[in-house]
Amino acid sequence: MNLREGHIAIAVDAMGGDFAPAAVVEGALDALAAAPGRFAILLVGVQESIERELARFSGRTAALRSSGALQVVHAPEVIAMDDQPNAALKTKRNSSIGVGLALHRDGTAQAFVSAGNTGAVLSASTLILGRIRGVGRPTIGALIPTAQTPCLLVDAGANVDCRPRHLYEFGVMGSAYVGAMLGKDRPAVGLLSIGEEETKGNEASLQAFALLKASELNFIGNVEGRDILKGAADVVVCDGFVGNILLKFGESVPGFFKAKFLRYASRGILNKAVALVARRGMRTVMKELDYQEHGGVPLLGVNGVSIIGHGGSTPKAVKNMILRADEMVERRVNQNIEATLHALPDGAS
Amino acid sequence: MNLREGHIAIAVDAMGGDFAPAAVVEGALDALAAAPGRFAILLVGVQESIERELARFSGRTAALRSSGALQVVHAPEVIAMDDQPNAALKTKRNSSIGVGLALHRDGTAQAFVSAGNTGAVLSASTLILGRIRGVGRPTIGALIPTAQTPCLLVDAGANVDCRPRHLYEFGVMGSAYVGAMLGKDRPAVGLLSIGEEETKGNEASLQAFALLKASELNFIGNVEGRDILKGAADVVVCDGFVGNILLKFGESVPGFFKAKFLRYASRGILNKAVALVARRGMRTVMKELDYQEHGGVPLLGVNGVSIIGHGGSTPKAVKNMILRADEMVERRVNQNIEATLHALPDGAS
Repeated sequence: MNLREGHIAIAVDAMGGDFAPAAVVEGALDALAAAPGRFAILLVGVQESIERELARFSGRTAALRSSGALQVVHAPEVIAMDDQPNAALKTKRNSSIGVGLALHRDGTAQAFVSAGNTGAVLSASTLILGRIRGVGRPTIGALIPTAQTPCLLVDAGANVDCRPRHLYEFGVMGSAYVGAMLGKDRPAVGLLSIGEEETKGNEASLQAFALLKASELNFIGNVEGRDILKGAADVVVCDGFVGNILLKFGESVPGFFKAKFLRYASRGILNKAVALVARRGMRTVMKELDYQEHGGVPLLGVNGVSIIGHGGSTPKAVKNMILRADEMVERRVNQNIEATLHALPDGAS
Repeated sequence: MNLREGHIAIAVDAMGGDFAPAAVVEGALDALAAAPGRFAILLVGVQESIERELARFSGRTAALRSSGALQVVHAPEVIAMDDQPNAALKTKRNSSIGVGLALHRDGTAQAFVSAGNTGAVLSASTLILGRIRGVGRPTIGALIPTAQTPCLLVDAGANVDCRPRHLYEFGVMGSAYVGAMLGKDRPAVGLLSIGEEETKGNEASLQAFALLKASELNFIGNVEGRDILKGAADVVVCDGFVGNILLKFGESVPGFFKAKFLRYASRGILNKAVALVARRGMRTVMKELDYQEHGGVPLLGVNGVSIIGHGGSTPKAVKNMILRADEMVERRVNQNIEATLHALPDGAS
């Protein structure tokens, strides 16, 4: 296999995540196997550690390395999962995150993927890649399951205090992403609030409502907490404070039912049987919530493609993150965002 | 049965709720039957409508009426469920809500209960009863189930944009309520935020953290979205925007699983059996979420006891609201709130 001209290269943070570098290296090889010849991978990190992991797969790596489809780029420093993001970025200038993003900025790579320290990847991506023209606040979206197709909750926690203009931008970026990546034509954008009526909301959401209404988006108005899982909107806009709380609450629901089922099961043998079956059924239903399947969340609004993965990313999750990065480059999500933001009515801020 | 001196009288909005006055009248009679001789009930509303409902239970009402345990107070106007609260309160000065609360303010009744227009009950309660000294914003709390004992989420939607001082007050009021009503000694108060660390939060929550930390409450710091259902705190403090969204999201979870189970069941006969059992197990587990059981939410911070019920309140829900109102009077929740607020460090605002 030879890498052809014009193909995409993806910089992968080999040191990012709880199971790095082992899980990242394995996931990268799986991604190359899943889409042979489509993209090259640059594994960025402590060379010695990466080579040690690669040695475990020597049978698979020889051809990939000689074709250039798999390269190792040394970055001597590692930002730990619990490092304070901005401090770490200042003191560890040659981290895998910094070096990987620089490769993307310089055009050596067309995307960057990391399961490392979320705050650091977020800050460094904005700093190194810069923002798309018109974007005040890059954002992280999270795909959540609904009774219909999944919807993108945006912002998922990157921006805590938001002005109306920021909420509007989240709608634009979310719509562009869902449109391009999930193949939705004119995704339905809803503003998360406390009532359907235009007059219901807090100060920021009421003003954001007006901006979204005046935009070219397919804005369906306010959606309430109860509408999300029904699939009322393809994109649900909120600030990162609400988004983070809601997502973490949602993540805790299966554990809550598990605890309840266990208590229920303790009340007799028949209950036990019912609880067992119920939990099995629920697990099956919950599978689509599995972050490994959708592999990471996109950082939207930066001049480039930067995918942030779960700290606990497995090889499968890493593989899917890489495949998603490749897709995001192909589908030109950022061009779409820039075009929509330019259509904003004057004077909105 | 004769009503003794010094017993409590509870004013009940006979016109409030989707099934009023039928469901309210029936629920009131059930409450009197459940706690004979403990309290009197003043049914407030359009006399003719109330009498028509009472006529259905003539066997049960004669003795109650002659003893004074059941009285009807005429209020000619009705605030509809979808009336704009403040406008309705102005134009309908003799509504069942206004008259019932006036009975409470004047000391004829010691509590007020309504399943009517939430916004109108909230506004009228604050206006007519006034606020407890030290309270800037009365609040509505909602009891939610956890893997442990239920916790009170406060504010549940009454106050959308909140200053740090308001969040602090919610903690004080929630703690007093849970302490008195659920018999918790020094309830654990958590501040809903996006990370456990003191430095995580939005502008308002960061400042509220400092106020709560300096208070006499059993403040356990920030809690995250995922901690609520685990039962990490007895009282979870947030603004009403977040609280409303979270509560409505939570209410929609069973419906989401139902939709998922149905889809799963459609994939074969074995799946169908599993889904059936799973749904049955889940329904059992969900029973404790039933609002009918806990019957309404307390309005905290007003000079009196005002319980607000679900619009769809059944006789059972109404009965439980009345029993709860009686309990709240007995347990002197408001005195507790006032005492704690007085202990606030100076200068907090």
